[in-house]
Amino acid sequence: MKIGIIGSGQVAQTLGEKLLELGHEVMVSSRDPDTVKDRGDWGTTPSANQWVAAQKGKGHAGAAAGSFADAARFGETLINATMGVASLAALGAAERGDIEGKILVDLSNPLDFSRGMPPSLAFCNTESLGERIQAEYPGAKVVKALNTVSVLVMVAPQALPEETDLIVAGNDADAKKWVIDELIKGWLGWKRVIDLGDITNARGTEMYLPLWVRLFGVAGTPLVNIKVVAAQS
Amino acid sequence: MKIGIIGSGQVAQTLGEKLLELGHEVMVSSRDPDTVKDRGDWGTTPSANQWVAAQKGKGHAGAAAGSFADAARFGETLINATMGVASLAALGAAERGDIEGKILVDLSNPLDFSRGMPPSLAFCNTESLGERIQAEYPGAKVVKALNTVSVLVMVAPQALPEETDLIVAGNDADAKKWVIDELIKGWLGWKRVIDLGDITNARGTEMYLPLWVRLFGVAGTPLVNIKVVAAQS
Repeated sequence: MKIGIIGSGQVAQTLGEKLLELGHEVMVSSRDPDTVKDRGDWGTTPSANQWVAAQKGKGHAGAAAGSFADAARFGETLINATMGVASLAALGAAERGDIEGKILVDLSNPLDFSRGMPPSLAFCNTESLGERIQAEYPGAKVVKALNTVSVLVMVAPQALPEETDLIVAGNDADAKKWVIDELIKGWLGWKRVIDLGDITNARGTEMYLPLWVRLFGVAGTPLVNIKVVAAQS
Repeated sequence: MKIGIIGSGQVAQTLGEKLLELGHEVMVSSRDPDTVKDRGDWGTTPSANQWVAAQKGKGHAGAAAGSFADAARFGETLINATMGVASLAALGAAERGDIEGKILVDLSNPLDFSRGMPPSLAFCNTESLGERIQAEYPGAKVVKALNTVSVLVMVAPQALPEETDLIVAGNDADAKKWVIDELIKGWLGWKRVIDLGDITNARGTEMYLPLWVRLFGVAGTPLVNIKVVAAQS
């Protein structure tokens, strides 16, 4: 499948490589494909073009980089992997018709680092990024998913010592079924997924992030997630 | 130990009974100890005085009810079990000197039901109820704890099919140690507790509530909690 990833940061690159390994064609995207990103204490992230060269060196001929508009046009399915506070601007650089009608997996969170660490959210509670994107593109099949874990766990759930949960939300039942059964379980190897319902439930998973960043801090590793345990009814 | 519970709703009554069973003296508190609370689809909650009568009928001689001021005066340790949006008003009805200097376990969440279900939060993100209470009573040893589970799980963690986590936050190390080792592990029987750090981390656990209410909805039971799973570092 041709997958257009909006974004070219660490999440886009790591998930993109995983999708290439699975045999898909992947285009990551950015404003400038030659910009190397400085992530402070976390080092640097290669430019989009460097990522493509590295992937081709690994035999992944289906790797490509382009503008946000290029990736939206390219993808049969789209993944939003930009910083959440920049997502609508990035999507807005694409042709509307290249987004509407497609499955758009939104794995971003509107983290606000401007007020210090750990980050807060730029908006939350009575709204969410997932809903903002769905409202801006009413014909897109937005599925909020994968935003509750580090990309390192996202592509390798077996890195954790037991099975944990991913939590999804979205309005389109068929799109959600595809994301759960194909992308999350089939491609990425997850066993446990919880469907919260429509896209308004993205509020729940995005508002979990302030807890997640703190659990990350206490655990001392981004390889952390939650398992939901309920009494048998 | 003499425990003053600010509040007399279902959480106060259920936790209060558990503490009575453990041999403590417990005073619940309300504006009017004869008011039976209508909880809509959830039925009614007995009045504070009805609760006391029922507890004495069970042989729990240490059960009492009083005003918020009475409970604050009575308790060597205090527990805030009011609705979060009403907590500061309830505490404000007590003598300041009956709160300052004591451990105050804050298990409330500032849930806002006025915008429909599931509830949102009345405030969050850059503040929390735990912080507001700590700021109002600088000498109190506020420990945010127990707010991430239903009271049914709080007093009976073994109701879940495996051990799950409670997550606490607070500024006073000794108070937090007492809450974790004595109250949570010793009295209530929990095995797993995560300490996030100072009281600002109450933002994390309070912002988890919008996810919790949705997990409750999907699970179809309030007997639900999370287990935090991290890779061994």
